[in-house]
Parts: sequence; structure tokens; C-alpha cells
Amino acid sequence: MKKTVAVIGATGVAGQQFLAALAGHPLFDVVALAASERSAGKSYQSALTDTAGAFRWYCQEPLNPRFADLEVEHAGEFDAAQVDLVFTAVESDAAAELEPRYAKTTPVVSTASAFRYEADVPIFIPGVNLDHQRLIPLQKKKRGWKGFVTPVPNCTTTGLAMTLKPIYDAFGIRQVIMTSLQSCSGAGRSPGTMALDIVDNVVPYIPKEEEKVEKETLKILGAFSGDTVAPAAFPVSVTCTRVPVLEAHTEAVYVSMENAATVEAVKSALRSHGKDFVALKLPSCPPRLIDVTDDPFRPQPRLDRDREGGMLTSVGRVRADHALSNGVKYMLVSHNTKMGAAKGAILVAEYLVHQGHI
Amino acid sequence: MKKTVAVIGATGVAGQQFLAALAGHPLFDVVALAASERSAGKSYQSALTDTAGAFRWYCQEPLNPRFADLEVEHAGEFDAAQVDLVFTAVESDAAAELEPRYAKTTPVVSTASAFRYEADVPIFIPGVNLDHQRLIPLQKKKRGWKGFVTPVPNCTTTGLAMTLKPIYDAFGIRQVIMTSLQSCSGAGRSPGTMALDIVDNVVPYIPKEEEKVEKETLKILGAFSGDTVAPAAFPVSVTCTRVPVLEAHTEAVYVSMENAATVEAVKSALRSHGKDFVALKLPSCPPRLIDVTDDPFRPQPRLDRDREGGMLTSVGRVRADHALSNGVKYMLVSHNTKMGAAKGAILVAEYLVHQGHI
Amino acid sequence: MKKTVAVIGATGVAGQQFLAALAGHPLFDVVALAASERSAGKSYQSALTDTAGAFRWYCQEPLNPRFADLEVEHAGEFDAAQVDLVFTAVESDAAAELEPRYAKTTPVVSTASAFRYEADVPIFIPGVNLDHQRLIPLQKKKRGWKGFVTPVPNCTTTGLAMTLKPIYDAFGIRQVIMTSLQSCSGAGRSPGTMALDIVDNVVPYIPKEEEKVEKETLKILGAFSGDTVAPAAFPVSVTCTRVPVLEAHTEAVYVSMENAATVEAVKSALRSHGKDFVALKLPSCPPRLIDVTDDPFRPQPRLDRDREGGMLTSVGRVRADHALSNGVKYMLVSHNTKMGAAKGAILVAEYLVHQGHI
Amino acid sequence: MKKTVAVIGATGVAGQQFLAALAGHPLFDVVALAASERSAGKSYQSALTDTAGAFRWYCQEPLNPRFADLEVEHAGEFDAAQVDLVFTAVESDAAAELEPRYAKTTPVVSTASAFRYEADVPIFIPGVNLDHQRLIPLQKKKRGWKGFVTPVPNCTTTGLAMTLKPIYDAFGIRQVIMTSLQSCSGAGRSPGTMALDIVDNVVPYIPKEEEKVEKETLKILGAFSGDTVAPAAFPVSVTCTRVPVLEAHTEAVYVSMENAATVEAVKSALRSHGKDFVALKLPSCPPRLIDVTDDPFRPQPRLDRDREGGMLTSVGRVRADHALSNGVKYMLVSHNTKMGAAKGAILVAEYLVHQGHI
Repeated sequence: MKKTVAVIGATGVAGQQFLAALAGHPLFDVVALAASERSAGKSYQSALTDTAGAFRWYCQEPLNPRFADLEVEHAGEFDAAQVDLVFTAVESDAAAELEPRYAKTTPVVSTASAFRYEADVPIFIPGVNLDHQRLIPLQKKKRGWKGFVTPVPNCTTTGLAMTLKPIYDAFGIRQVIMTSLQSCSGAGRSPGTMALDIVDNVVPYIPKEEEKVEKETLKILGAFSGDTVAPAAFPVSVTCTRVPVLEAHTEAVYVSMENAATVEAVKSALRSHGKDFVALKLPSCPPRLIDVTDDPFRPQPRLDRDREGGMLTSVGRVRADHALSNGVKYMLVSHNTKMGAAKGAILVAEYLVHQGHI
Repeated sequence: MKKTVAVIGATGVAGQQFLAALAGHPLFDVVALAASERSAGKSYQSALTDTAGAFRWYCQEPLNPRFADLEVEHAGEFDAAQVDLVFTAVESDAAAELEPRYAKTTPVVSTASAFRYEADVPIFIPGVNLDHQRLIPLQKKKRGWKGFVTPVPNCTTTGLAMTLKPIYDAFGIRQVIMTSLQSCSGAGRSPGTMALDIVDNVVPYIPKEEEKVEKETLKILGAFSGDTVAPAAFPVSVTCTRVPVLEAHTEAVYVSMENAATVEAVKSALRSHGKDFVALKLPSCPPRLIDVTDDPFRPQPRLDRDREGGMLTSVGRVRADHALSNGVKYMLVSHNTKMGAAKGAILVAEYLVHQGHI
Repeated sequence: MKKTVAVIGATGVAGQQFLAALAGHPLFDVVALAASERSAGKSYQSALTDTAGAFRWYCQEPLNPRFADLEVEHAGEFDAAQVDLVFTAVESDAAAELEPRYAKTTPVVSTASAFRYEADVPIFIPGVNLDHQRLIPLQKKKRGWKGFVTPVPNCTTTGLAMTLKPIYDAFGIRQVIMTSLQSCSGAGRSPGTMALDIVDNVVPYIPKEEEKVEKETLKILGAFSGDTVAPAAFPVSVTCTRVPVLEAHTEAVYVSMENAATVEAVKSALRSHGKDFVALKLPSCPPRLIDVTDDPFRPQPRLDRDREGGMLTSVGRVRADHALSNGVKYMLVSHNTKMGAAKGAILVAEYLVHQGHI
Repeated sequence: MKKTVAVIGATGVAGQQFLAALAGHPLFDVVALAASERSAGKSYQSALTDTAGAFRWYCQEPLNPRFADLEVEHAGEFDAAQVDLVFTAVESDAAAELEPRYAKTTPVVSTASAFRYEADVPIFIPGVNLDHQRLIPLQKKKRGWKGFVTPVPNCTTTGLAMTLKPIYDAFGIRQVIMTSLQSCSGAGRSPGTMALDIVDNVVPYIPKEEEKVEKETLKILGAFSGDTVAPAAFPVSVTCTRVPVLEAHTEAVYVSMENAATVEAVKSALRSHGKDFVALKLPSCPPRLIDVTDDPFRPQPRLDRDREGGMLTSVGRVRADHALSNGVKYMLVSHNTKMGAAKGAILVAEYLVHQGHI
């Protein structure tokens, strides 16, 4: 028996990615779609068609005809009790209002930031910190909910925390500096990044992004101290920029480790990361979480983003950093709307089903 | 009386930038052009016209008709004694062979890397280390040349060293980490960056670039110790990437300072940098060397690269860095083929005329 | 004595282009700015600053500090009687409501389409059909206005009609087919062309654009028949597409002429077009209206759009077309937000002052 | 038993596309690779690795490990007798010399233009003119070859001829006008389209392209007259441009038909084209040759190029053209390196196997 699921914010880019990934899913059956009042009452197909007649579906995968005919419900009035699981892909303000309402009855796996910084809410990255699931019963109890809310992190955090985790576990971390070169799809569509802004250009600032990445990374790498997760204690300093790339974020990472480690030892730690999680063979899980290449010209976002269905974190240019104590530096590419958003959230949900939380 | 000058490597992108900048120059009169044997004997206009009939002039400024008619000479056979000054814009291998030959009789201001790492050769950035001119008589004497060779740095070094200099002087520097987002024009035309490589993409590696930037920055910030320049002693760690931008390099810089300084103090040091040099009112000198903005969305390469004729280094997003001790971080944009190459070299030459070296 | 002018829709891209072009203008003195209610009451500087702190000024030219301090008025309540001339740069719906109100007291030169298709309203292109000014007194009389409304055409029409005019006059026209490759700046900012739509892509449709271009071209090339302009009688068929270019429209034009003409004769007609108009030496007029190149790789939008301040129509690849009777085909590049919008409207206004209409 | 094949020009972009498409092919077994002398003797993997260490494989599909280890032979010395079939993906000059040598013993299916315009050589497009196979025995006899040469057309011809064919058959054609917006991958890699040329730009000319498209289209639509193919007799006029798109050509087509036909009738003819060919179920054949959409914003190259493995020709915006007699106009997108080159050639070869020619 599949679990019935609803996708909230289904008409946005992130919501579309959920539907692209959930077509034919072995565990989840999409039975309800919801969005803002403007789309409510329309078929999903017509809700995606703008006034000029353009069909605004942004995924490479074609829209599943069964989803095309579903009637979009009003997210503000959606009754979550009718489904086993809710995926939310809405802006933070909307999530702050909607997710607690849904969670009263139903588990919510979210791409929104609204609850990420609450003490009883884990920010899950598959294969990195799923042991933070211990927070779920605590959250349910504290809030008196039958369901719960578990967000995935900001899409820029995902690749960073995914690659820091094995380094942290093996060698410890003292300092992290990271500069991101982020794609345009992460900018959402409202207001979105204008062609006028980004053609032949770099935008050196993404509002609120840097704070999120710094804070979320530490929480994700945190460990239980009694009933709460104590964030990791090293400083993280990031600069987030937008570049003329459609999909996938590229990040240049510099790490000062607690203990000395050779470049080969770091590569080895990265390569062997997540084997236990992969061994669960969850439907959306790639055969490995991190690939490390020795080709100095890789990873590149256009060439590497779609590897393993967009679920692989590609690492390259691993080399010693002589400016930092026990320093190592590398580049990574992570697909921001696949592993970094909808598909990452689906993989989290698969794990939560596996663990009996859903 | 103007100085007569030759431009070597005149048909390449950097050579073209020299000609664009030297049209109507008050001090320099271009009387000779040279390039490889393939172009020798042709008019400059026809040397720039490829077999398909395309006119391969890459500057915004139109080609001066006087230059169009000049006959291109063979660089390998060019007699530098006939001019007062030689500008070279050739690849490093060619420079290694040609520049010593020219320097026997004539000063050479170069954009090539061939001589940058020789102890008796200064790497000049206008307004940063022109006091390294003390090396010129030593170089002439040691090598038995009537002329000399003074290169400008790699175009990625320029913006970095320009902005580190006032911080170094005011507060001292312990560590520097920098990630560059470099434009395609810096890739030259042979082999050049292919559209297939860079559209919707980032290339995470530029061969030899990172080593150059790290080494040159320290030499430029070095001080005299007896008759040689001792490089600055702090570690510099850089990652150089190529992004889909036509002109101007963007850099994200993280600095650990020797002494604590507020963000405002750092901004103030950057803003007041180079006033004495600017006061010389050399023809190619901008009215200020560094601009610091408080608009968080600036600098952007497309919007800021052409300010002050491409001779301004634009800085923004200056903020405290909590991962580094006494840390500060910022973004900069510097025009790689103007201040970072030909026009920067011309400004150096203007200064050397002013000082009587030419 | 300069004429006092107001710019309506001053905060949009087209309005900004008006201000960029009117800074220091010898005939016009901007004394009032107006926009939607949202901007009303703010200084122009702050009206352009969005909630994230980004300063949304889209012109290459810096914003004139005098304009930055002007208070933006509410367009719906603006009293046009206080100025000698109104430039409007608003959407068509707003123009339909605002322009008649302003025209009761004051001449209005508009970039909007609202009145273009009214029989008593000329659509002006400088140097092409300014004799249509005979409609102005008729319009004033018919509508009982002290002022009048004269729009410029759609930006894609401008280059087409500019180049068809000399061919039409010299050889007659039977048929025209045109495919446009339009830039993103023409898409406006609301909703604007998203980076997600246009990176690595072509959008083959621009709503309402093709009909406008077909209809406007014929009206502009029309001649007086009694008191009205009878549109030219040949069929025009166009396809309008959007390509990843920031500024300037490229058009591939195929013309069947009434009378046979050599390619050289067509080039000659294009080159000699508009000499009388140019001879008036109006402030915004380029030294020639059309340039014809024999370089087969030109015109290119990035390289040719800014020639003569964006006021030149660049033509190339003029060659015989053997599919059409007496056929000729060519490519053109025209700057859509300069000659094709604000600066073109200003040049029209300069002419109307010269003719005593303002 | 699979046919053994060699790929000549295997290191170029087109050659790589052959290998991507031939990995695991049910009919063809790649047993030999050849390229220029520079690559000869190296493994294919190392032949693709440049001096800076970059691995220059340009396909989305990963390189098959079996091909990676094949030794590249020198094309000029390759003995074609050892294989059943040769695919060539070399420049025209090389093809003129190599293909007749190979054809002495072996069938050659080519992407090069060298033999396209010979009277006894068919230019094949799958599903369009495979009846031109009648030329094969004539060619073999006339030239005394055991093999033969059959090229596919220029990649810009493919989409045009594919869509004209059903219109020509159903309604007849009087005139065709076409403007192409071509991708950068078609430019090859030597010299290739530079990022400096095409970022934020359109290049309005592609040397020799327009003549090829005009001539090839008519030959492909030609019919047998005795032992030769008489080209179709209507005039074709094209303009070929390059736009900032990675893969897939977009074309705006205007057709004057012999007989009047409604837009619906034209769409119907396009949609039903090639059913018999598709029914053969050849391995590389898509389930339909042409898709016609009513979404006015489609086809778009980025969104539609990969449909049906890049083998579908996507048509949209079909509408009446009032400038031409019995006119119809439409847009098409065709993948230039899939159906328009290697995969199209493979589908031709599959058909020739089916027909017993190979």
C-alpha cells in the first residue's frame, strides 16, 4: 500500500520538481495538490497556463497526465488529515502559517525555512544527520501534534554540509570559508532573477542566504546533548553569489581541520561517506552520495548536475590549503532543485517511512 | 614631444586593448606594430580580418584609422632601438624570447608573465608599489641593458593586490583566502574559451592561474630589504574559476588582519588609498583607485566594469568575517583587460616617463 | 529658455532611459517625475530602491543626482498643465487612461501603444514620417485638446520601418517578411523575461508583438489621402522571437520590390536615407540614420547597438533574394530602448519643438 | 550478428555523438576509431584529454568504458575493408580524400558535405527521401566501388526538409523563406564559436551555410527522372544566424504553397508524416518524426531538443501567412547534433541494413 501524499505550493518551481519526482513513485501516491487562492479550483494544467497561454512547467521531465487533471485546492483551506504525508514547497511566510496546521494531523516534509531554526525541529540531509530523527517524538509531544514538521535545508547548505560531514567526523573542523556560485533556478519565480540582471553578470548578494547557510550547517552537523541538538561549534563564513547558470550550485570550500590529514585521506573520507545509508536502497537514493574526481576541470554545473538523477554531490579540485591550519580546499557541485530541494525532501520522507515515522 | 612606442602582439585581444587605449594618447605615439610571422607584412586592418572575412577587432572603441593602415612587422625581427618604448602583449613563451632582445636597447612594459618572478624585475600595479622602481637601475646594471623589462601582474592579481595594499599598510595581514569568478576575455583567443564550455556553466579551474596570483600578490606587497624586494610573508590561498561573463573579474576576498579594525575603518582605508598617486594626474589615471559601495548588490561586473574607463577597482559587501581572526571579507570587481592589462600597463608607463625612466 | 518636461512612468526601464537621455539636455528641463501610487511621495532614488536594498537603475549612464532627489508624483493625479511637454513610458492600459487627461492641456510624446492605431494619431519615427505632423492640428481640433498625443512605434517596428522607408520610396514594395531576434530588455520588468526562460534558449513568441509590427509599419509608411494617412498597401508578415541578448533587436528582412534594383542600388538608397532630417542637427540626432556594412559578420547586437549613442540603425548582409520577385534581403540591428523607445521619442519631441508644435 | 563499424573523426564533437549513440547499439558494434595523426596511437580516453588535463568529452551521456580503451588509428591509413560500415564525422576537406578510399571496399555513411552535391550521391534524411536509395547501385557501378558514400545533410537542412516534405507532398510548394537561429555546438570545435563572440550577442552569418541549406533542401525533395534525382523546382531563400544556445537549431519558416490549405490541414499533414517509416521500428527511430504543438510559446530549443532522444522535429506556431500566396508559416526546433548529425546518420544506416545495402 502506497502512502497518500499532498504537494502544497504545487504550482511553483519547487512544487513542480516534487511532481516530476513523484510520478510513478513506488512509495508515494500524489492524491492532492494545493496552492494559493489564485490557482484554487483550476486543474493543475490550467493553473500552470498563464494569461498569455504559456504553459509554465519548468522541469525537464514531462508533466504526468494524471497530475495535469488534478484540481488544485486552496492551501489555506486544505485538510491534511486526508493524506498520510504532506510535502510543502511554499515561501517561508506561508509555511509559518500552514505547516503547524497540517502537522496537527499529518507529517510534513518541507523545503521552507520557517521551522528550521526551532530547537525541536531537525533539518534533515539524507545520509548526513538522519539520527536527528530522535527530535521527532519530542517535537510531537511538546507541540501536541499527531504529525510533525521536518524541513530540508537551504539548497546551498546541502552540498556544503554533505561534504563537511565526513571531514568533520574523520578529522574535526576548526574553520570553514565558502564562496558559492549559485544558479538562477534557486531564485524562484516570484520575483525571480531577471534576464536583465544576470546575463553577462554576477550578482554578489542573495538576501538572507548567507545567514541561513552558516546557521543550518552547524545545526546539521550538531550532536545530541540530552534532548536537544547542540550545533557544531566551529565558525563558518560564506559569501553567496548568483551566476548565469540555470541549475546547480557550485561552491568553493576552504576548511581548517582539527587534525592534519593528507589530501588523499580527505578524498577517501569523502568517497566512503554514506555507505550505510546507501545500503538501505531507498527508491530515490543514488548509488553513492559523493563523487570525487581528479579531473582538475570538474565538477562543472552543466556537466555534473544531472548525474545520478541530480542526487549526487560532485567534488573536485581537492588540494591542500596552506593559508589555514591543517587546511584543505575543494570545489563542489550540487543540484539545487533536486538533491537540494524536492528530491532531497522525498528521500528524507522515504527514510521516515522506513523508520516508521510516516 | 611624444615618446614613440611599438605594440608587440598587436593582433591579440590584449594588443588590441593597447591600441584602443593609445589612440590620441597625449604622451605616446604608436609608430610600429608587430605580431607573429603569420601577420607580418599585412596592414593591421587586413591582419585582423580572418579567412571568412570577419573583422576580429574585440574592443568597444572603434579602431583608429591610422592604426588600420600600419604595416604589421614580424615580432621576431623587430628592431626595438627605433622606438622609445615597447609594450608587449604576447604569450609567456614568446615574451621570454622577445623581451630580453628588446630590452637591450629599449624599455619594455609587458603584460606577459615571463619575467615576473625574477628577483630584479618589479611587477607594477599603479598606485600600489611603484616604489619598486628602485629595481630598474639594478636590473639594467645587472643585465647590461640600456632598457629594462617591467611587467604588470596577472589580471586576477591586480584587483586583489590593489585592495589588500591599504589593508596591509593600515592593519597588517595574517592570511588571505580568495575565490575568483573570472570573465571569458581573460582566456585569450588561443585556444580561448569555447561557447560550448561556458554557456550555462562554471569552469572550476584555470591552468597556472592560482599559483600566479598567490606568488605575485606577495611580491607586489613586498618591501625592500637591501637591494631586493622581500615578498610579504602571509599565506594567500586562491581558487580561480571561469564564469559566463564577458569582461571583468569578480573576487570574493577573506582577510585575517594582524590588528583588529572595524568594518568602517577598513572601508575608510580602501577609500583613501592612492591619493598621492592620483594627484600626479597622469593621463590614464582614474580620479580614484578604489570605490567602496554600501549597496549590497554591488559591485557587479557588467554594471561596474567600465566605471572610470575600466580603471577603477569597485569594492562592496565589506563586512566582518567571524571565521578568521580579526577577519574582514569583501567582494571586488576589476576590469581584466583594462586596469588588469593594457590600460594598466600604459598607466605604469606614464609613471615611468614622469620619473624619467623612459 | 528650455521647455519644462515631465516623465511619466519614470521608475520603469523605459522611464529610466528617458532620464538617462534627458540629463543635461539642451532643450528640455525635467521638472517632474510621476509613477504609480506605490512610488508616489518618495524621492526618485528611494523609489528605485527595492525592499532588499537593491538600487534598480538599469542604464549604463549613472543617475543624475538632480533627478535622484526629485519627488515622484502619482501619475493618476499629476497636473500636466504645469509643464510644456509630457513624456510617457507606461503600459498601454495606463496610457489609455492617463494620456488623454494630460493632452487636454499639454503635448504628450509617448512610448505606449494605446493611441497608435487611432486615425488622427501619427506614429512618428524620426527621419521617416515626420510629415505626418499634419495630423496634429487635426487631432487637437477633433478632440478639443490644447495638447496632443504622438506615440513612437513598438521598438521592433522602428528598425524595420526605418530601413523599408528608403526602399519603398525608391523602388516600391510588394511584400515584406521579417523574423526578429529580440533582446530581453524589451520584455520590461513586469513580469519581465526570467533568466530561467531565456538562458540557453529562444522563446518563439511575444504576445501581441507581431500584430503591432505589421500594422504600425504600414501606417508609418502611409501617405496622406485628404485628412487621413492611408496605410501602405503591401502585406507584411513577421515572426517575433526572444533571444539571450540584453539590448538591441536583430531582424532578418526579406523584401519583394515593385521595381527591380541591384543590391548596390538598395545599399545606396539605405545609406543616403534621411540626409535632410540629419541636416537639422537636432540634439539627439545621429550624424546618419542608417549605416550599411559589407562585413558579412555584421551587424551584431552587442557590437553595434551603442554606435552613435544607440541612435543608428545598422544594416548588413544586403543581398539579392531569389525566392521573391525583385527580391532583396538584409539584416538589421536597432537599439530597442534607445532609438526604439526613449531617445527616439526625445528626438521626435526635438523636431516638434523645431516645428513649433511644442 | 552485429555489423562491425568504424567511426572516423571520433575525437570531434560529431564523432563523440556517434559513440554516445552507438554504445549498446543492437545492430552496430564499434570496433575501430580513427582520427587525425595527432591522436593516432593513443587510447581514445587519452586522445580526448588535452595538455592541461581537461577531458574534452562533450556529450551528456558518459563515455562508454569500452570505447575509452580503444586505440585511435590514423584516419589516413585506416583500412576500411576490416569493417562492415564506416561512419565519418570529419571536415569536408578530409572527407573528400578519405571517403572514396573507404568506399572502395565499404559503405560509408557520412556527416560531411564533400559528396553531397554529386549527382549519383543521395543526401538521406530518415523518413523523407530514403527512396533515393535507388542511387546506391548506380553509384557503386559508376565508380567501381564495392561500397558507397551516403551523406546526411547539413544540420540546418534537416529540420527544414523534414517539415517541408509533407507540405510539398500534400499541397505543393512555390517559395520558401527561412531564418535560422542556430546553436553553438554546430560551430564545431576548430575553430569553434568563442564565448567572446556569442555571449549577449547574435552572429548574423555562418560561412557557406546558406548555400548548403538552399541546395540540399531541393535535392532532398527531388524525385527520380530516369536514373537521376531532379531537384525540386521552387526557390528557397535562407538566412543563417548563430545565437547563444548550446544545442538545437530553431528555424522560422515561411512557405507559399501551390494549393490553398487551411492551417489545420497543414498541421495534420505534418503530424501524420512518416508513419510508414516509423512502423519499421528501427532502433534509433522515434515513435513519430514531427510533433506539432498549439502552445504558442513552443517549440523552444532548451525545452524541446531532447524529446525522443533528440530525434523529434518539434513544430509550433503554425499560422497563415498573408504576405505569400497560399502562405503558411511556422517555427521548428531540431537537434543539430542528434537527428541533424550522428544519430540521424545512424538511423539512415539502420535503414540501409534493413534494405540489405550494408
